[in-house]
Amino acid sequence: MIIVLKPGTTEDQLQHIVERIDALGLKAHLSRGTYRTIIGVIGDETKLQSTPLAAIPGVAEVVPILPAYKLASIEAHPLPSVVDVAGVKIGGGHLAMIAGPCAVESPERMDAIAAAVRSAGANILRGGAFKPRTSPYGFQGMGEEGLRILRDVGDRYGMPIVTEVMDPRRVELVEQYTDMFQIGARNMQNFPLLTEVGRSRKPVLLKRGMSATVKDLLMSAEYILSQGNAGVVLCERGVKGFDTLARNMFDVAAVPLLKTLSHLPIIVDPSHACGRPDIIPACALAGLAAGADGVHIEVHNCPEEAFSDGQQALLPEQYAQLAQQMRGLAELLGKTVSPLPEAVA
Amino acid sequence: MIIVLKPGTTEDQLQHIVERIDALGLKAHLSRGTYRTIIGVIGDETKLQSTPLAAIPGVAEVVPILPAYKLASIEAHPLPSVVDVAGVKIGGGHLAMIAGPCAVESPERMDAIAAAVRSAGANILRGGAFKPRTSPYGFQGMGEEGLRILRDVGDRYGMPIVTEVMDPRRVELVEQYTDMFQIGARNMQNFPLLTEVGRSRKPVLLKRGMSATVKDLLMSAEYILSQGNAGVVLCERGVKGFDTLARNMFDVAAVPLLKTLSHLPIIVDPSHACGRPDIIPACALAGLAAGADGVHIEVHNCPEEAFSDGQQALLPEQYAQLAQQMRGLAELLGKTVSPLPEAVA
Amino acid sequence: MIIVLKPGTTEDQLQHIVERIDALGLKAHLSRGTYRTIIGVIGDETKLQSTPLAAIPGVAEVVPILPAYKLASIEAHPLPSVVDVAGVKIGGGHLAMIAGPCAVESPERMDAIAAAVRSAGANILRGGAFKPRTSPYGFQGMGEEGLRILRDVGDRYGMPIVTEVMDPRRVELVEQYTDMFQIGARNMQNFPLLTEVGRSRKPVLLKRGMSATVKDLLMSAEYILSQGNAGVVLCERGVKGFDTLARNMFDVAAVPLLKTLSHLPIIVDPSHACGRPDIIPACALAGLAAGADGVHIEVHNCPEEAFSDGQQALLPEQYAQLAQQMRGLAELLGKTVSPLPEAVA
Amino acid sequence: MIIVLKPGTTEDQLQHIVERIDALGLKAHLSRGTYRTIIGVIGDETKLQSTPLAAIPGVAEVVPILPAYKLASIEAHPLPSVVDVAGVKIGGGHLAMIAGPCAVESPERMDAIAAAVRSAGANILRGGAFKPRTSPYGFQGMGEEGLRILRDVGDRYGMPIVTEVMDPRRVELVEQYTDMFQIGARNMQNFPLLTEVGRSRKPVLLKRGMSATVKDLLMSAEYILSQGNAGVVLCERGVKGFDTLARNMFDVAAVPLLKTLSHLPIIVDPSHACGRPDIIPACALAGLAAGADGVHIEVHNCPEEAFSDGQQALLPEQYAQLAQQMRGLAELLGKTVSPLPEAVA
Repeated sequence: MIIVLKPGTTEDQLQHIVERIDALGLKAHLSRGTYRTIIGVIGDETKLQSTPLAAIPGVAEVVPILPAYKLASIEAHPLPSVVDVAGVKIGGGHLAMIAGPCAVESPERMDAIAAAVRSAGANILRGGAFKPRTSPYGFQGMGEEGLRILRDVGDRYGMPIVTEVMDPRRVELVEQYTDMFQIGARNMQNFPLLTEVGRSRKPVLLKRGMSATVKDLLMSAEYILSQGNAGVVLCERGVKGFDTLARNMFDVAAVPLLKTLSHLPIIVDPSHACGRPDIIPACALAGLAAGADGVHIEVHNCPEEAFSDGQQALLPEQYAQLAQQMRGLAELLGKTVSPLPEAVA
Repeated sequence: MIIVLKPGTTEDQLQHIVERIDALGLKAHLSRGTYRTIIGVIGDETKLQSTPLAAIPGVAEVVPILPAYKLASIEAHPLPSVVDVAGVKIGGGHLAMIAGPCAVESPERMDAIAAAVRSAGANILRGGAFKPRTSPYGFQGMGEEGLRILRDVGDRYGMPIVTEVMDPRRVELVEQYTDMFQIGARNMQNFPLLTEVGRSRKPVLLKRGMSATVKDLLMSAEYILSQGNAGVVLCERGVKGFDTLARNMFDVAAVPLLKTLSHLPIIVDPSHACGRPDIIPACALAGLAAGADGVHIEVHNCPEEAFSDGQQALLPEQYAQLAQQMRGLAELLGKTVSPLPEAVA
Repeated sequence: MIIVLKPGTTEDQLQHIVERIDALGLKAHLSRGTYRTIIGVIGDETKLQSTPLAAIPGVAEVVPILPAYKLASIEAHPLPSVVDVAGVKIGGGHLAMIAGPCAVESPERMDAIAAAVRSAGANILRGGAFKPRTSPYGFQGMGEEGLRILRDVGDRYGMPIVTEVMDPRRVELVEQYTDMFQIGARNMQNFPLLTEVGRSRKPVLLKRGMSATVKDLLMSAEYILSQGNAGVVLCERGVKGFDTLARNMFDVAAVPLLKTLSHLPIIVDPSHACGRPDIIPACALAGLAAGADGVHIEVHNCPEEAFSDGQQALLPEQYAQLAQQMRGLAELLGKTVSPLPEAVA
Repeated sequence: MIIVLKPGTTEDQLQHIVERIDALGLKAHLSRGTYRTIIGVIGDETKLQSTPLAAIPGVAEVVPILPAYKLASIEAHPLPSVVDVAGVKIGGGHLAMIAGPCAVESPERMDAIAAAVRSAGANILRGGAFKPRTSPYGFQGMGEEGLRILRDVGDRYGMPIVTEVMDPRRVELVEQYTDMFQIGARNMQNFPLLTEVGRSRKPVLLKRGMSATVKDLLMSAEYILSQGNAGVVLCERGVKGFDTLARNMFDVAAVPLLKTLSHLPIIVDPSHACGRPDIIPACALAGLAAGADGVHIEVHNCPEEAFSDGQQALLPEQYAQLAQQMRGLAELLGKTVSPLPEAVA
């Protein structure tokens, strides 16, 4: 950690700062420059991270050297992690192809969509039973009934399932049905929820918040990892931008950035990033080309009847075409898609 | 609601759209232009809000006319609401002066800060017992012990108290101690939590999320109001910006914008918006001048020892000076600060 | 165009609005809804675009139907444009591989870099002679001497050249040397400059401004096109974002979005978008996969001695590796790179 | 300047960096930490500012200590500057009240608006003769005829005038008429234009670009100052934001931030920041309360007939009411408004 002092800091103030550092068992290393004095702090920086050094009189700026996340960092774990979702691998060259409707709506609808995405090549099935809706008057999901339907359909097609959990009181219930938890963008900093899924041993798909930096995302992953759950998959799904043509700003550079900082797999969700079927395929391919370990796509067989987010769903035939392009690109990039068992149906 | 069709939409597609509108008991009013056809939908627009019209082939754009929030809207309630926090009024000309430390740290510290802010003119005391921290390794708050301390100190100084709740499982506990719930920025779209505090009858201070639009904030207020809790006070506390000099971008224009859309009181929190004591007072005054119904300020008597956010706390003497300026400005603007009872101590 | 009226608009106000529309030779089509009245305006909407309808009492919102750009729109020109830069084609399946140093620094440096990028497969050579620098104390470019060097080196290697022009007084000078003008991000809305290059018949590489929407970019292209210069190539080079890990936020979705709105070729510049060599290759591939018609990369053979932007330059060997990956991806996507004539050297 | 090395930097790389520093006549001060080595550079940091240290292998991060602007900095000039615009003072307790239409439209219109704003208390008259318009098809201003009208009307009412210049070729012409140049937001980084107005000795109103940081704004001021023109007045006019309810995001905190960094006066322009008459007055007062040295407001006596930006103009009576409130607030803050000579008319 480096502490930059204000011009005109007094010798007494300097002394006080050095004493605070000493008291933590660290060593202060002074560089007195022409205009400013800077202090290099030698020792275990983590001791300083919870001390509000910037509040000490005379301190102009505090520059941390170590990341505040540890378990998520590439320094802690230089090789890419591979997360196993009921037999489907994500990361380290293994590609997740996650697809399904925004919400579980009925057994028939779910079955039809699962059949379509499985035959197109998807290897994980998604569907929401508890939906975070901006409006209290919107459809809030089928609840446990939705979980049951998703589980049944996943089993029928031999596909692992992923579904969102929004409420720490529901983690236990959702865990009974799902193969992977999804933490949505709005809950990326819902710390009680992160702690709760961290206590589970089922993998977690952690979506980036709309105004979260890449480091914020890693700090939230750290919450889960620090509870002992190593199965975290990150997801870039668009951040808040100023152009209203797309729903969000798809931050594709987050994919290679995360690869420089962390060992965790990172997938992309162009459905939420773009919100427009006409540009979702292009952004899915862009994500893959940038190095993503998977692609999450919302698919619906009758978008205009969808209970939520119908306007951003791909049709099954659009998904099939995209999946073929993704396989071509994956081959070029030397990535593989985990095979599924024979479907029961 | 207005539906704009794509150029080249076929007569069949148009017919299909009109049928969908009819089926909802509404009337479609066609305007066939030189380049485009537009459809005005006459009737109860709320029926359409959960229908994904944008997903119907031929539809280019859907322009809603009515806001999706109802109870929060100024149309529903043209006069400004006044929220009563254990005797202290907020809104309709009544100014909230909320102050206190980021976190409750000890009975002595809390007492000293409360004494200082009360004598400076604050009329509501704040302090966190459950802290949302970016890092799992940071101080997470004193929990129930912190609530007890805050309650005691508030009673001693005759000040209503406000404290954050982060977890729906803790609403009942927090309610036993506090006079007002705070929902933090990171939880503005934590819908189970909003629903839970909505079931309480204690007022709620709802902070704007870092990437929430003004309308998103009103939708979240609607969650609380729709559960029957009318005591919602909104809070602008800075949104995500691109300039790193301040912690966030203080969106002072949100204050008059919200006044055009809603009857709910709106206060400002320059401590979190700015994160720098040297500009907090200027932004506090800016918020008041823009029409805010109150100002929320973090105060600490030894910021360098604070357990959290010490770098943004004002010292008691800085708060006292600011409070005096705020009173001068309030007088000019014709606003009053609810008096407190005699302090017990 | 649709005009939405405020609730409570009087009959007189409505009448006044209708008269204003009639006076322009257009027809007003009223839809009186339960809550609001809306007016569809039938006729040549362009007449309305310069009339401040939103300023008329009673008007709540004005919703344009037609884009304000015409020549740049896909409606005006449904097939993709192909721009010819001294024999190298961009657009319509032809890929531009533009590379070179940020600034022209010396004949020897320029020659060495050109040799390297040409042999790696680049087909257009870039280099700045007039540099827009944030600081007045930074290197401002070699001026005409730089243009001469770039021209010589381009000729020696048989590569068309592109260089930035910042000052309308220099357009004539730059035109004598270059094959393509570059308009930098900071000048995207420098309208006198756009007008000046619009009067030339040499193609223009128009970079998106850091806070420009996709439609703003098309409006700036329209300035050039409306002067009679049809050779506009758009360039996404990152917009302002809130995460400081990368220099800008690379908006890869702008590529497919622009394809839905315009016939103009669109290339990407991951060097400026990212500002970090470790993620530039991933973002270059992402841009191609998203459908870009070319990739612009800064290359330097000794970045630490570069006069400007050294920290974001790829080394020649890094560029060679990326170029090979780009060719592989281009082949998969069915795109071709215009061949160059035999180099003279 | 502080140089942070990457983990695993070799002794050879370290040696190379130290040699580069020595070669510039500076001293490297090493702090070898447990995890990282950092180098404090002692000496004249400006020598390093144009050296791309971040491009040297082994360098992770470069942290500058000194600002890159010098003449604009508060270190260079600790007391607030006062800029004199033909007798009207701005800064150091003197308040500018700038008002007028977006564009000069006719002598009669200009006269009527000037009469109104002068009698309301404005002390500088604005009006555009050269208009930067997003669309090439929009009204581009009356040109020299507009300058002549503005000059005449300003003289008639004894008001100094300010008008925009967009083209370096027009600086000489505009200088013959105006008392103060305006550089618009879109031209904040038009460096040839900044250099040209820097050579004049007439003061310059420099508007902040839509995606410019506070430091970027100071760097652009430095361009003007470094040419010898000390009369720079900064202007906050809103930056790009994600909420579409207002035209831009009014960054009121920029006012106190700039006061901590620079001696230059800073005014606010809520007309462009907000773009909505219903919230402009509140934001004008917020700007003043935050410490601004003046307020710039667009006023038009018939907004619906305005040639540009009519939707954001205040009516004369709205301006008169706001001006009265601003005077009340200025008095509370201890600021004065420079009196004007008797009007000739």
